Amino acid sequence: MKSPDKILVINSGSSSLKFTLYSIAQGNRRLANGLVERIGTASANMAYRRDDEPKSERIVSAEDHAAALKLLTECLVDPERGVLASLDEVDAIGHRMLHGGEIFKAATAIDPDVMSKLKALVPLGPLHMPANIGGVEACEKIFPGAPNVAVFDTAFHQTMPDHVSHYAIPNEYYEKYGIRKYGFHGTSHHFVMLATAEFLGRKPEDLKLITCHLGNGSSIAAIKNGKVYDTTMGLTPLAGLVMGTRCGNLDPAVVLTLVRLGMSADEIDNLLNKKSGLLGVGGINSGDMRDIVNNAAKGVKSAETALAMWAHRIVLFIGGYSTLIGGADAVVFTGGIGENSFQARECVLNLLASLGCYIDREANNTRRGPCYLSTPESKVAAIVMPTDEELMIAKETFEVVSSR
Amino acid sequence: MKSPDKILVINSGSSSLKFTLYSIAQGNRRLANGLVERIGTASANMAYRRDDEPKSERIVSAEDHAAALKLLTECLVDPERGVLASLDEVDAIGHRMLHGGEIFKAATAIDPDVMSKLKALVPLGPLHMPANIGGVEACEKIFPGAPNVAVFDTAFHQTMPDHVSHYAIPNEYYEKYGIRKYGFHGTSHHFVMLATAEFLGRKPEDLKLITCHLGNGSSIAAIKNGKVYDTTMGLTPLAGLVMGTRCGNLDPAVVLTLVRLGMSADEIDNLLNKKSGLLGVGGINSGDMRDIVNNAAKGVKSAETALAMWAHRIVLFIGGYSTLIGGADAVVFTGGIGENSFQARECVLNLLASLGCYIDREANNTRRGPCYLSTPESKVAAIVMPTDEELMIAKETFEVVSSR
Repeated sequence: MKSPDKILVINSGSSSLKFTLYSIAQGNRRLANGLVERIGTASANMAYRRDDEPKSERIVSAEDHAAALKLLTECLVDPERGVLASLDEVDAIGHRMLHGGEIFKAATAIDPDVMSKLKALVPLGPLHMPANIGGVEACEKIFPGAPNVAVFDTAFHQTMPDHVSHYAIPNEYYEKYGIRKYGFHGTSHHFVMLATAEFLGRKPEDLKLITCHLGNGSSIAAIKNGKVYDTTMGLTPLAGLVMGTRCGNLDPAVVLTLVRLGMSADEIDNLLNKKSGLLGVGGINSGDMRDIVNNAAKGVKSAETALAMWAHRIVLFIGGYSTLIGGADAVVFTGGIGENSFQARECVLNLLASLGCYIDREANNTRRGPCYLSTPESKVAAIVMPTDEELMIAKETFEVVSSR
Repeated sequence: MKSPDKILVINSGSSSLKFTLYSIAQGNRRLANGLVERIGTASANMAYRRDDEPKSERIVSAEDHAAALKLLTECLVDPERGVLASLDEVDAIGHRMLHGGEIFKAATAIDPDVMSKLKALVPLGPLHMPANIGGVEACEKIFPGAPNVAVFDTAFHQTMPDHVSHYAIPNEYYEKYGIRKYGFHGTSHHFVMLATAEFLGRKPEDLKLITCHLGNGSSIAAIKNGKVYDTTMGLTPLAGLVMGTRCGNLDPAVVLTLVRLGMSADEIDNLLNKKSGLLGVGGINSGDMRDIVNNAAKGVKSAETALAMWAHRIVLFIGGYSTLIGGADAVVFTGGIGENSFQARECVLNLLASLGCYIDREANNTRRGPCYLSTPESKVAAIVMPTDEELMIAKETFEVVSSR
């Protein structure tokens, strides 16, 4: 059997479907990518781009994920804009999967048994898992010969010890309902760990890292010798940091207070996941860090508070995790905000001096990652490292398919 | 007017009433103390002790807090066992008050206006505040000439900046319902800060401290230059650390999951406040740290996990707070566990090396506070400092009454 080459990566959300096609043989080259948004409406938005050519967009009708995928694959084999002569060239498909529960500790080839286990995990991710699984089912129809591989957002965090991954509630809630800390963004933390080790010229197993994935959703992982020791997200991606629209941690009694005020679970869920975080605090009707930073710079008090709150929570975990893993070698910034907002990063970096991490303001203000953001005298390095979850999924898919 | 001397301190709980009588003129000497438990039953338990004499106990009938207080005051003026010739000798009464909301930032003499404000704060402490206020009302009857002073568990934390004291939820929930972080154990953190400064021969305003009040209820405060910068408890005492029966922080979505499983707010409240923490995790039907430590030493896995979870959460906050306040001078242990369980303390101290805090195992195992638990080479000192909330309430009451 020839080595797998063309790997399609699928990220299937509740109303969107994104893909990236890689050639492993061409050095992990990205051949094409695209997406369909607003699936289920008559005016879905489709975008497609070959390699580094300009993106083309059009409005399409895509009644479901299978229809959306069909439209995208037509682009892939289009005589003019396509990159494949036939869909048979796709050797394997890697799927971003939100939740692997405790069953899946690594990327896994999907067979009927795995599929039924994935379906059993829907209660742990009721919004995302049906869409993730729907993406697999659509691919099974359109690429009948290609193996599908599930790459889990939770898998990399499965190394957390019990006293870290469990909540301080009676064990029956874990046994009956699977309530524990799972953590998310695992694929990104994993990618960034590997890339940072390469950047530092060291082995992951010799490093202690605090990886900060800061985007609209945000999480931090404490990674000791290649293994996640703790992470900020929990049973769901709501926990931990202050995010674009999510509150992160709060006194559990706040939720009880909202229940007693007469709010339903769905209303509270919506409030804490969609109306909180930077959006809820910033007072500028935006959860976008660029708007928060701009308004804070103009002296808008509520935006200043939101930014300070965001940084405070991040530093709490950086300092706490650093102590718990016995001192970090580096604090690594990634994700949309972590890679691009030097202002937001500065708010964090300014508070790390007592860890022996000193900001290089020039580098932070002007350079793009991968690079150092800390001065050479720093005992703990600050690094910005671009993440690439799609590429990581492609690589993991390649590994799974190659080793079969 | 003569300087106030005899200060009665009252801690009035939902079914108990404790008192301590101090003489300020005799160097804050404790003249007598006592309590009535199971108030409202025909077999309430009363205990009374004069100075350092043996405690006497008996079963009494105390239908309410006023009846309980009456019985206790009879002891105070008893010709044989008493310490006062007349109740008129009591110059002022200090009351432990759970919640001062945002109104009360320091101990406050109670007048009708203050009393109505206290009653307005009941929704923030529905279990404790009615009992606290009931204690004041009982004293107004029994000591008609003595001023009553409220000393708030929340007051010392009122220096937290907005971006620390507010949750990342829309501001209207703060404005309408007062939902924010208040923090508790303030009187203890305040006492311990002052005592630690004295122990170190420095001024509080020149110190950065992490004070760890570790008892059945537990909280940590980050105190920068005499002012609380952050603390682990929140809207209620449920937040933050793993406690005897409380879960501390967890993904807010866990509470929503429990709601969706059909549990009522009261049931969840009871689960998270009374059945969780060391009790819920330890698997030995006890939330008492002595039992946890003993069982962990015997190799009971669930008790080991509970102990490790307890320490993990504490170290997370010590490390995080230390970083946020720019490096601590000392980490201070107090409270029932913090002062007495060297085994539990060791679990924490073993994880502080990367902060430059090195355990002195001999001191930790054998010495009682106040003393150092860290080696002289430590850059951050570890100290055990006994707390005395009653004495602090007496001192604050004295200050308020003296300055009128």
